[in-house]
Amino acid sequence: MDSEEENNMIVTFLPQNIKQQVHKKDYLLNIASKANIMIDGNCGGKKNCGKCKVQVVSGVIAPLSSEEISILTEKEIKEGYRLACHLMVEDDLVVQVPQINNNISRKTKLTWMPENLSLKASIKKYFVKIDKASLQNQVSDSDRILKVLPEKGVAISPFLLVNMPRLLEESDPQITVTVKDNLIIDLEIGDTTSHCYGIAFDIGTTTVVGMLWDLNEGKMIGASALTNPQSIFGADVISRIHFSSSDPNNLLIMKTKIKECFNHIIKDFISLYNINNMHIYEATVVGNTTMSHLFMGVDPTQLSRSPFVPVFCMPIDLPGKDMEVNINPLGNVHLLPNIAGHVGSDMVGVLLASDIMELEGINLAIDVGTNGEIVLSQKGRVFACSTAAGPAFEGASIYQGMRAASGAIEGAHIHYGELILKVIDDTEPIGICGSGLIDITAELLNIGIIDHTGKLMDENWAIENNIDTSLAKRLRKGKNGKEFVLFWLEGQEDIVITQKDIREVQLAKGAIYGGIVIMLSELGLQVKDLDKIILAGAFGNYIKKESALGIGLFPKISLDKIISMGNAAGVGASMALLSLEDRKKAHEQARKVEHIELSGHSDFQTEYIKAMNFPKEV
Amino acid sequence: MDSEEENNMIVTFLPQNIKQQVHKKDYLLNIASKANIMIDGNCGGKKNCGKCKVQVVSGVIAPLSSEEISILTEKEIKEGYRLACHLMVEDDLVVQVPQINNNISRKTKLTWMPENLSLKASIKKYFVKIDKASLQNQVSDSDRILKVLPEKGVAISPFLLVNMPRLLEESDPQITVTVKDNLIIDLEIGDTTSHCYGIAFDIGTTTVVGMLWDLNEGKMIGASALTNPQSIFGADVISRIHFSSSDPNNLLIMKTKIKECFNHIIKDFISLYNINNMHIYEATVVGNTTMSHLFMGVDPTQLSRSPFVPVFCMPIDLPGKDMEVNINPLGNVHLLPNIAGHVGSDMVGVLLASDIMELEGINLAIDVGTNGEIVLSQKGRVFACSTAAGPAFEGASIYQGMRAASGAIEGAHIHYGELILKVIDDTEPIGICGSGLIDITAELLNIGIIDHTGKLMDENWAIENNIDTSLAKRLRKGKNGKEFVLFWLEGQEDIVITQKDIREVQLAKGAIYGGIVIMLSELGLQVKDLDKIILAGAFGNYIKKESALGIGLFPKISLDKIISMGNAAGVGASMALLSLEDRKKAHEQARKVEHIELSGHSDFQTEYIKAMNFPKEV
Repeated sequence: MDSEEENNMIVTFLPQNIKQQVHKKDYLLNIASKANIMIDGNCGGKKNCGKCKVQVVSGVIAPLSSEEISILTEKEIKEGYRLACHLMVEDDLVVQVPQINNNISRKTKLTWMPENLSLKASIKKYFVKIDKASLQNQVSDSDRILKVLPEKGVAISPFLLVNMPRLLEESDPQITVTVKDNLIIDLEIGDTTSHCYGIAFDIGTTTVVGMLWDLNEGKMIGASALTNPQSIFGADVISRIHFSSSDPNNLLIMKTKIKECFNHIIKDFISLYNINNMHIYEATVVGNTTMSHLFMGVDPTQLSRSPFVPVFCMPIDLPGKDMEVNINPLGNVHLLPNIAGHVGSDMVGVLLASDIMELEGINLAIDVGTNGEIVLSQKGRVFACSTAAGPAFEGASIYQGMRAASGAIEGAHIHYGELILKVIDDTEPIGICGSGLIDITAELLNIGIIDHTGKLMDENWAIENNIDTSLAKRLRKGKNGKEFVLFWLEGQEDIVITQKDIREVQLAKGAIYGGIVIMLSELGLQVKDLDKIILAGAFGNYIKKESALGIGLFPKISLDKIISMGNAAGVGASMALLSLEDRKKAHEQARKVEHIELSGHSDFQTEYIKAMNFPKEV
Repeated sequence: MDSEEENNMIVTFLPQNIKQQVHKKDYLLNIASKANIMIDGNCGGKKNCGKCKVQVVSGVIAPLSSEEISILTEKEIKEGYRLACHLMVEDDLVVQVPQINNNISRKTKLTWMPENLSLKASIKKYFVKIDKASLQNQVSDSDRILKVLPEKGVAISPFLLVNMPRLLEESDPQITVTVKDNLIIDLEIGDTTSHCYGIAFDIGTTTVVGMLWDLNEGKMIGASALTNPQSIFGADVISRIHFSSSDPNNLLIMKTKIKECFNHIIKDFISLYNINNMHIYEATVVGNTTMSHLFMGVDPTQLSRSPFVPVFCMPIDLPGKDMEVNINPLGNVHLLPNIAGHVGSDMVGVLLASDIMELEGINLAIDVGTNGEIVLSQKGRVFACSTAAGPAFEGASIYQGMRAASGAIEGAHIHYGELILKVIDDTEPIGICGSGLIDITAELLNIGIIDHTGKLMDENWAIENNIDTSLAKRLRKGKNGKEFVLFWLEGQEDIVITQKDIREVQLAKGAIYGGIVIMLSELGLQVKDLDKIILAGAFGNYIKKESALGIGLFPKISLDKIISMGNAAGVGASMALLSLEDRKKAHEQARKVEHIELSGHSDFQTEYIKAMNFPKEV
């Protein structure tokens, strides 16, 4: 009893002023998770990314760990900053949490949608008048409903029986019958046939997008995006897998978080568009294989170790009630099939949306999400692989990297010796996101401040080589080695790109380029044979194609042959929602894809290393 | 707060010494139900049957109601007996509850089982060795399982994914795969193929029977029977419907009670036969239409009023987890279809077991359960009807009527002027059950103490007509009018049959006989045309055929043409469990039956009244 009393502590999180009771010593990051406080935890509890900084306002705290001393700046230490993953809470504590912009600042949109969208949804609604029972018409309630239905060979879900007597008790019952795949899944008093909705979900590692569709009209009503709430347990899939497997309860937390996120999006749709969640009859879901596993509550551990085999690839159908997704409880949640351990149903969505398997010529689709997934198609055959490209472009392994949120440098341009930055929401910059990183690298390569081996020059070299002073003075030696200052901040840490950041870009782009070369070689082809490159993923939308070619992210090809498709995975999920034929096609296509495991490919290491250098002729 | 404190009472039920806390005034019968105490409540809360007697041991109690004064004997009142449905509890109370024999004393058996029982169960189990994944065999866990399965075109239930990684983590995984209708519903480490079970349930209004089958061998392992726990809320279906519809919570109570009963039977099987409930893959269920509705939690109110239309007749399949029945959670619970409001799936079981629809000639099947359900078949056509026959034969409307439990007079015979009683368990008699009632009536008819109009003679008549003195002296006038003493009890109420009881027998047998005549008339036939009478139901097993013919329960036919089939409904449920072909046949047969609603038939009232008299030539 004594120890219990001793350990009854309160942690207060500012600025929300949320208080969390704690019964035993625990790390602040875990306590924050229980309180539903979003703290960036990029490394998923490995304790080495340094992203989970919080400022201690008051309370007796344990001394700094050696890792905190090495990761935090002197200034930060003076100001009371600590790493939430390292700080063991042993007494009442008040902490200030740096705010993560949880709303995606870039407007969520499907930049592209195929024309002549096929509409063949699985839901049909009928408004019918039910005969009264009598001694001469002694037919059960359920059989009288089936009798007047225009569709025959239909069954009634047993779950509807409980409410059936109430529906038919009126003197002249007129009801709406909702049929899905020969099963009646809802019965309602009155005419609700005009309300028939579905949602396509795209579970990105970073962002979860929901698209609400009118299934009668085949029209999108709206879209909504939220930061994937699993992000607080790790920025990339490997960190999430690590977190999920480190404690049996964590897997459940991950599952619950993503279901909560879905239900949050649904709640938004309900209030924004004044609809009833009972009228949402289907949801399709795409995501990478780890996201699919976590969504099903399936341990993804084996995805993090060779031979990277998923527990399942098959498409899954389960009612809303069993999936804990707040659509109609008998409505269907359809998870599209995965292809391999790191080529998920999001890529199946890309295949469907791009129709790449039907295109003439030799075509490449790249989804530079948190993982770089690549598909190569030559009519008749399709190869897919995944590369560990994402963390750099999503900000995780970059010193001041961040997601594409407010304050991120998303673009850069050197104009007559002046560095011009493009910052999301036009604020003072606080970090660099993927498109900014590529632009900066390309521009610095262009003027020679970075050479083709990735070496960042120093100020002396710049002066000797007649680089503008305004740029030369940005080259300096910081606490992490050589760096180039992007933005000076008064009294705070300047925004910089470091030599190490550039190495991370090289690793990422080398992996993607190397993967492309290996896939082409499987078909006996070379990079020059490529007809088209399709960029999928939000990242592909914001990337400057010239910069991407400039750093050699993918093979040199004329700009008009590079097509940005935006959230192609989401488009694919929408197509599978709207059309059962498209859904079937997606299943068939997923089975046809030949997966190439780069880690098991003898030539990959060679190609990877070759591709790490930047192109010489920029 | 005051009123809460005032109303915090404890009711103690003896002999179990179970204490129930009560927070507000309530009737003792309701409090007993919450405490799971079985008190007979035949009338379902209508407060007029007088069966729910309890003896108050201590406590301040409300005065007797006028109904209690009229129903209870003076002696009972003196001894502190009260009716639980009338006694409002306002203070701490200790009561002695007369014990109901909850175990069926007559050994549960399927007296008859068709030869050449068809075995084509829906479950198949395979013991297979799963390949290890490798970079050369980068196939998902689920696909590697499907690959080695001899059966093709099979899918895996998504609910199995969560445990799949654990199953395959061994170095040389060998697992048992259980397939039901092309869906894998279980995966287990090791070889469990020899364990494959199913249960056939028969929900009688009075008794619930479960039969455990080995689905590999097609052999019955054992059977178990329990009093239907809903009995405490009413002896017959009408009382149960009344109780279910009198409070929204009552419907849930009824559903929960029957599920608990199933799970009790399953628990018994598990411990008796040392099996794992995960290896019970299917359960089939039959019962009358009210029992089917209550099992599904569906309000049966409309079954109690014209036009007596059920909410559903269709067969139902739902997984164990959704049915709240503790078989394998993905195992299937199959409820056989009903035919009409008072012709249930139990009669569908009788059709299947008796194969009456395929028999040559004109055949009749009668299930004298709580309701008398009758089927008439002439090759090609089948009619069914139900009659309100049951309550008398199940003891409900009989003054000292009781179920066929320990102490019930189950048979009677007059031998050289002596009345010889047959009592269940050879104890002192405490009441009369159905077969005893028929025997007594037939014997008294035979010697003229009852005439063909049903009139019970008095002692004077008996002496004048040379009836043995030992019998004549049994005729007397009691507090309920004329009666015949069956057994004298020292210091307690004697066991008697009253004039009113005989009228109840006449009503019941008139209804059955009248129903038979109406059904025959639909085919242009008369009672003399009948080829066979099949008696279904436990009652049919214990009935003395001569007595049944003696009182004119059914048409006069030679004794060898009357066949007792015992629990034919249970046999039918077992056949539907063992063979998918038989199950399909049962569904088809249910649809072919033409239901005759006697209450809507113009000639029924005439035939009913005609049939109320006993046969003249006994």
